[in-house]
Amino acid sequence: MEIAFAKAGGLVPTIVQDDRTGDVLMLGFMNEEALAETRRSREVVFYSRLRNRLWKKGESSGHVLKVREIRVDCDADAVLVRVEAVGLGVCHEGYRSCFFRRMEDDGTAKVIEERTFDPDRVYGQEKKQ
Amino acid sequence: MEIAFAKAGGLVPTIVQDDRTGDVLMLGFMNEEALAETRRSREVVFYSRLRNRLWKKGESSGHVLKVREIRVDCDADAVLVRVEAVGLGVCHEGYRSCFFRRMEDDGTAKVIEERTFDPDRVYGQEKKQ
Repeated sequence: MEIAFAKAGGLVPTIVQDDRTGDVLMLGFMNEEALAETRRSREVVFYSRLRNRLWKKGESSGHVLKVREIRVDCDADAVLVRVEAVGLGVCHEGYRSCFFRRMEDDGTAKVIEERTFDPDRVYGQEKKQ
Repeated sequence: MEIAFAKAGGLVPTIVQDDRTGDVLMLGFMNEEALAETRRSREVVFYSRLRNRLWKKGESSGHVLKVREIRVDCDADAVLVRVEAVGLGVCHEGYRSCFFRRMEDDGTAKVIEERTFDPDRVYGQEKKQ
């Protein structure tokens, strides 16, 4: 099947969901090469807009995302990857999920998850790998 | 809290998740106005890149998404909305979730969900509202 990379400017938003718990863990972007590499290696590879290169999730932390299932949406311009997340969390802030804050009615953000690891020990100076 | 709309070119990817089942239902985009309107009305409003205007999900189908919780990610450039989805499905193709197809090892897409409604009866000629 064709993913609508061209329509999406080369990058499609990719949702990562824990295959066991159903929790949404993070959102990244894939280009065609990142998706191909994800399918080949069975571990999630994104395209980093910041670093302008392929970025294997967990390449420095070891917190890789093992692919269980890849889904595509009706318009083929978004991808959902169900994974087994290796390690104590995917977020460079030290949480299981990057969505650890709730937007309150007054517009403030409230942390509603427990920290599961110390990001300084895992990432050191090089954050968010 | 500040959402990084500017960094994201004005639009942040927004994941819609069923609050009860945990299923990921769809992905859309919100600009600042869409998020404000979603928070005010407690029903999900996206920004349609195709129509270049705010787009209330369910405005013609009645399949609105009632907001249960809004979460933001660590970089504040992605939003997760947990919802109660009114009606038999969110997808204009007639499924509960837009992610009704699995990418197979050979690259083909396989439908792995059951159709829950007839989209022609719900949407008529004007698709995808």
